Amino acid sequence: MIVDSAHYKDGARQHDEALTPEEAAERAKTAESGEFVWIGIHEPEAGDLDRLAKLFDLHELAVEDAQNAHQRPKIEDYDEAFFIVLRTSHYHEDREVVHFGEIHIFAGANYVITVRHGPGSELASARQRLEARPDLLELGAASAVWAVLDKVVDDYIPVANAMEDDIEEVETDVFDDDVPAPTARIYNLKREVVEFHRAIWPLLRPLEDLEQGRYERVPGELRSYFRDVADHARRVDEQVMSQRELLNSVLQANLALVSVNQNVVVKKISAVAGIIAVPTFIASVYGMNFDNMPELHWHLGYALALGLMAVCVLALVAFFRRIDWL
Amino acid sequence: MIVDSAHYKDGARQHDEALTPEEAAERAKTAESGEFVWIGIHEPEAGDLDRLAKLFDLHELAVEDAQNAHQRPKIEDYDEAFFIVLRTSHYHEDREVVHFGEIHIFAGANYVITVRHGPGSELASARQRLEARPDLLELGAASAVWAVLDKVVDDYIPVANAMEDDIEEVETDVFDDDVPAPTARIYNLKREVVEFHRAIWPLLRPLEDLEQGRYERVPGELRSYFRDVADHARRVDEQVMSQRELLNSVLQANLALVSVNQNVVVKKISAVAGIIAVPTFIASVYGMNFDNMPELHWHLGYALALGLMAVCVLALVAFFRRIDWL
Amino acid sequence: MIVDSAHYKDGARQHDEALTPEEAAERAKTAESGEFVWIGIHEPEAGDLDRLAKLFDLHELAVEDAQNAHQRPKIEDYDEAFFIVLRTSHYHEDREVVHFGEIHIFAGANYVITVRHGPGSELASARQRLEARPDLLELGAASAVWAVLDKVVDDYIPVANAMEDDIEEVETDVFDDDVPAPTARIYNLKREVVEFHRAIWPLLRPLEDLEQGRYERVPGELRSYFRDVADHARRVDEQVMSQRELLNSVLQANLALVSVNQNVVVKKISAVAGIIAVPTFIASVYGMNFDNMPELHWHLGYALALGLMAVCVLALVAFFRRIDWL
Amino acid sequence: MIVDSAHYKDGARQHDEALTPEEAAERAKTAESGEFVWIGIHEPEAGDLDRLAKLFDLHELAVEDAQNAHQRPKIEDYDEAFFIVLRTSHYHEDREVVHFGEIHIFAGANYVITVRHGPGSELASARQRLEARPDLLELGAASAVWAVLDKVVDDYIPVANAMEDDIEEVETDVFDDDVPAPTARIYNLKREVVEFHRAIWPLLRPLEDLEQGRYERVPGELRSYFRDVADHARRVDEQVMSQRELLNSVLQANLALVSVNQNVVVKKISAVAGIIAVPTFIASVYGMNFDNMPELHWHLGYALALGLMAVCVLALVAFFRRIDWL
Amino acid sequence: MIVDSAHYKDGARQHDEALTPEEAAERAKTAESGEFVWIGIHEPEAGDLDRLAKLFDLHELAVEDAQNAHQRPKIEDYDEAFFIVLRTSHYHEDREVVHFGEIHIFAGANYVITVRHGPGSELASARQRLEARPDLLELGAASAVWAVLDKVVDDYIPVANAMEDDIEEVETDVFDDDVPAPTARIYNLKREVVEFHRAIWPLLRPLEDLEQGRYERVPGELRSYFRDVADHARRVDEQVMSQRELLNSVLQANLALVSVNQNVVVKKISAVAGIIAVPTFIASVYGMNFDNMPELHWHLGYALALGLMAVCVLALVAFFRRIDWL
Repeated sequence: MIVDSAHYKDGARQHDEALTPEEAAERAKTAESGEFVWIGIHEPEAGDLDRLAKLFDLHELAVEDAQNAHQRPKIEDYDEAFFIVLRTSHYHEDREVVHFGEIHIFAGANYVITVRHGPGSELASARQRLEARPDLLELGAASAVWAVLDKVVDDYIPVANAMEDDIEEVETDVFDDDVPAPTARIYNLKREVVEFHRAIWPLLRPLEDLEQGRYERVPGELRSYFRDVADHARRVDEQVMSQRELLNSVLQANLALVSVNQNVVVKKISAVAGIIAVPTFIASVYGMNFDNMPELHWHLGYALALGLMAVCVLALVAFFRRIDWL
Repeated sequence: MIVDSAHYKDGARQHDEALTPEEAAERAKTAESGEFVWIGIHEPEAGDLDRLAKLFDLHELAVEDAQNAHQRPKIEDYDEAFFIVLRTSHYHEDREVVHFGEIHIFAGANYVITVRHGPGSELASARQRLEARPDLLELGAASAVWAVLDKVVDDYIPVANAMEDDIEEVETDVFDDDVPAPTARIYNLKREVVEFHRAIWPLLRPLEDLEQGRYERVPGELRSYFRDVADHARRVDEQVMSQRELLNSVLQANLALVSVNQNVVVKKISAVAGIIAVPTFIASVYGMNFDNMPELHWHLGYALALGLMAVCVLALVAFFRRIDWL
Repeated sequence: MIVDSAHYKDGARQHDEALTPEEAAERAKTAESGEFVWIGIHEPEAGDLDRLAKLFDLHELAVEDAQNAHQRPKIEDYDEAFFIVLRTSHYHEDREVVHFGEIHIFAGANYVITVRHGPGSELASARQRLEARPDLLELGAASAVWAVLDKVVDDYIPVANAMEDDIEEVETDVFDDDVPAPTARIYNLKREVVEFHRAIWPLLRPLEDLEQGRYERVPGELRSYFRDVADHARRVDEQVMSQRELLNSVLQANLALVSVNQNVVVKKISAVAGIIAVPTFIASVYGMNFDNMPELHWHLGYALALGLMAVCVLALVAFFRRIDWL
Repeated sequence: MIVDSAHYKDGARQHDEALTPEEAAERAKTAESGEFVWIGIHEPEAGDLDRLAKLFDLHELAVEDAQNAHQRPKIEDYDEAFFIVLRTSHYHEDREVVHFGEIHIFAGANYVITVRHGPGSELASARQRLEARPDLLELGAASAVWAVLDKVVDDYIPVANAMEDDIEEVETDVFDDDVPAPTARIYNLKREVVEFHRAIWPLLRPLEDLEQGRYERVPGELRSYFRDVADHARRVDEQVMSQRELLNSVLQANLALVSVNQNVVVKKISAVAGIIAVPTFIASVYGMNFDNMPELHWHLGYALALGLMAVCVLALVAFFRRIDWL
Repeated sequence: MIVDSAHYKDGARQHDEALTPEEAAERAKTAESGEFVWIGIHEPEAGDLDRLAKLFDLHELAVEDAQNAHQRPKIEDYDEAFFIVLRTSHYHEDREVVHFGEIHIFAGANYVITVRHGPGSELASARQRLEARPDLLELGAASAVWAVLDKVVDDYIPVANAMEDDIEEVETDVFDDDVPAPTARIYNLKREVVEFHRAIWPLLRPLEDLEQGRYERVPGELRSYFRDVADHARRVDEQVMSQRELLNSVLQANLALVSVNQNVVVKKISAVAGIIAVPTFIASVYGMNFDNMPELHWHLGYALALGLMAVCVLALVAFFRRIDWL
């Protein structure tokens, strides 16, 4: 579905309504430097991409990649155009799951086509933000690439922070004796973190290339802006790497605490067993059948025996309390 | 066994039937740029390789390597020709084992010889796919190398995905209390993943060399195509690396859960032991032989004693239920 | 809040009182080489930064970063000026927590603006130390950058040492049988160490760039001074990395000791259980109702039975002592 | 002990009998390009090396290194000659230990001196193999270096494979419930693997230098041959690295299985304890001394009580069997 | 304290007695190429360094570093001179602790000042060894730097070997069932190894720079000698890295063995408990008060009951022996 399609010239959008792909291709062909069209697609239908591929002469390998999602994040330089794959992220708070979508960008000298799959990082806001900046718009199609990269990477930050919060909750649970060991939750967070790292990490090197001006077709004025994106991506990745390491340690601390906890249980049980065993032993003694057991014939023998048992129990309870087993 | 042998010229196969090696060598010798022969061999018999080595003047070290399988994946540049070793993969679903085979490629200016060992990645489909692309065929022998690389690397993807599925099954098992800890299965998956990484990883650097045009004899038009292969290989390798890390964490989570599980068992056992010990103690008390034990002479003494035991048992069951030990 | 604002020329401060931002901007504009103004801000209020941004023509991306704390440590080169982010550290001894603040530096040819967020590394002392060194002051604005970097990095050292002390305490606790396993404390230290590494590590590469003179606008005379800072940063980072590794090992040693400890408890409990079980068994024997049990009719039968029990208990105690279970 | 000493010229050995060191040095001095002497020494006696050092003018640091074994594998370029240290390996099957020896090579323009310490990789076969290749012999002393490197690295392969077999045995043992946990054996294998990696790894970089022709004095015709050696070394090292990782996982799986095993034991014990406790309880009940216990007076009371016990025991056995505790 | 101070010219020491710092500075000023003074200081007193700093015009940052120990190992190039920090090591066998000292070297064109803190690597022997080598002495001050580096790095070797021995002892202890788990000792060794690595590792890169001739002022004749030092440092570091990895594995093996050991104890205890429970049960049976219990009236009833108990105990002992629980 084509979401929006606009023609930008002299730092401003030329028409409010969306252009057809054919109109857009026409204008891209006759565009001068700093002038470009931006077509935004969400969940492309059968034929959408093929039609655009013909109109804009997109490289077959890029089109093939764009047709099925689950690509690796990358920036590929086909001499005539760039093909960029980004993974978008959206944190589903309830289920503590990061949903990943994808954005594919075809960026030529005078056109940008953005193809969005799945949830996360819708691009209308990126477009609006760019349209409010004539100085950047004037730099041509690369500014739209920046706007999309900036949006996608900025959307990583709340996801990383949400995971940070979850990790803190998990830590609290691990060290709280009244809560069962949250092993499965730790593992699931680990999984998310690994997946998230896989979404960000491959992007760092090509972003660095953009930052350091290795692609000649990208205007130098944008380098600071790409560096800003790269810097945010690096920050998120470093945060995610730290989370990964912390989750490893949490998993180990969790293991130690499970053992400690077991120790506590074993002690408690043993104390109780001991407390029952002693009066049972006393009862056994007075169950013996010797002829000559004077206590048996005392008038208060039974009461004294019960009393002895009670005293033993109380003494044992006190003892086990003191050594902290109960 | 020679599977197929064809002569390609002007982007098209010249004969339907297979050529003899001698015919193929003849045509390779007189071939012009963009013209080449492709001989495909499966499980070479004694003498096959020696015969081809003489006909095509293959380097002795490459021939020696090709004669016994179990080579390291690599792309070697003997000035006159390339020698390429690839590991093919095939996932055996039932036994959760990845079978690895090997493909060795001798690629000269006007000939390509592919030698396949073991199962996985049969090359007929790669050949067909290439024959449908005259534009690539015209670029000469390198296009056949691409076709084989593309086939082998694309065949890694379903294997990696199958392992992904197995890992998800294992995760479910680990966190399912009713299933015994799948330690052996986790370990076996780990083994597969390590082996798989060893098949892919050594290929990444030479693929990058191809992608960046470090080999002058490879036509520039193919660079995007080799980049596509390299990109897929990188994606699989990153997937495999994540799997490796996840399996490490699963192994640790598994250990924690085994301990938690043991804790649960110990609590249950202790509860039951306690529930038996208390009435046993009561019975011992009334087994004492004191003269003066009034309860013994009550008409309902026995019934009351049994009742007391039952009450204790029920109270204990309720108590242990509440503290979640039963 | 503007803390201080001064004009430096010919290696000396020109006025004791603080300049207004407008005055400072005026002087910066007309400044010659080696002459500069340094404005120090702590916890900037709304509008502070915008006002300075207009006066000194600061880059919008840098201003945006400076407005909200939680930036990644970095040195960014906007051709007209540097933007530097540093994380300051302050160790809160009681709670064993490192508090991190931030310092943002805008450094142009003739001005330095330092913006400090949060606690740690107040800069008055850095300014005083620099004012005592006319030879460095004469080198211009870069000397103020050095003074701040030097202060911040030197303040890392006591923090790292305090963590070193805490780790040593934790080690003592881990190996002391009378102290419960300090798992939570180990984990919290691990967290601090990871966070601390994240504050230092990203700074190492840009510091190395300064050390090796990659920024042409920085006077060569300062290279040794920046190398000194870089060297201290590296030392702290290496210390922190070692701490990280040690904490991992402590966590594992802790786990082993928890298990050993459990073993000791289990042995103790079992010994006691055995010690009770044996006399109970003896009592059971003499509770049997056989007609012909001669011991029952001995005059000293009961006393001998009790004696036998006592002997058994003593023998068992001695035995368990010898095998170190009690 | 000088094992062999020969003069090679025009691709052939000149004399069958061994030359004295003095004769060899004489011929080396007057040798033309492609002509060289090869002296092979095993376990040098006192004075051997000093004599050769004087005759061939060997560098003092190299001689010092060669005099005591336990050097790090390396290829050192003293402008007039190379000094090479290799670690040889030999797998002692019975004790599952890799024995390491060392070979030191002094290689000048017209001489090669090989000094072998300890067992493994005797060089007679390397010499024979080289003598069968006049085309390589003609390339001069470097061909002898290749022959030795090739022999040593090829001898790593059976060692790595033997360790592979041992690891597979260990895996079988770990997952076999009837075999005690082979912790010590896993650890010893780990030790071997670490040691082995230390023998191979330092060699990879200098071998790569040889492969890429960084040493000008080495004839270009040998580059493919050195690449072949480097490739084998890389393969073994990758195999060894995988083994290392697998052994880490085996150690962890082993730990999990020890815990699982303990769990099984605890369940079994508890089941048996429960099975005894119930009839004991029944016996205690009928040991009570109440006046009014009708069952006691039944003619079949005793038999019924025993029967009740038996029924309980059988029911419990069946129950524990069903929940898989017995 | 100034330990020694000498003037070297034409490869020989000029005076036996030590020069005063002022004399030394004088001669350094007028020295020609290949001529230098070497002042050795141990535990400098207040003022010592300031006096030398004035005489030899040492850089303030280097002097500041030299004044307080605990510097990071490094080689710093102040254009007029080098400042080198080395960590010396000394193994204290009894307490299994490595003591680290420091040596700081100021090395100009015609002077070398060595400042030693703490124990380990006293330099008199290094000076003597150098004085015996006129050929090296003639190369100037760099030869003294080499002599010190060589001494310090050679002194690492016995330390690394001593730790190797300790690790082997620890391994023996871990796998010896009669020795308690040496967790604390393993951890302490780990700590030593980490610390030791931190002393060596930072030196590797600057040593490589020396080896590859990156510092122009160092005579080329010394490159082989610096390479020899670098090679020894690399060897020790690789040894230490292996030790680190082995200690990690030992810690894990230790954990597994603690668990196995616990398992053994639990089995033993359970066996004993079972052996007591069975005769106790039998006694309980014959303590029942049924009217009709024929065995009770048998003349040998009691003896048979005791016999039955004995048989049960013996049978159980035999059974538990067979399944290896006792």
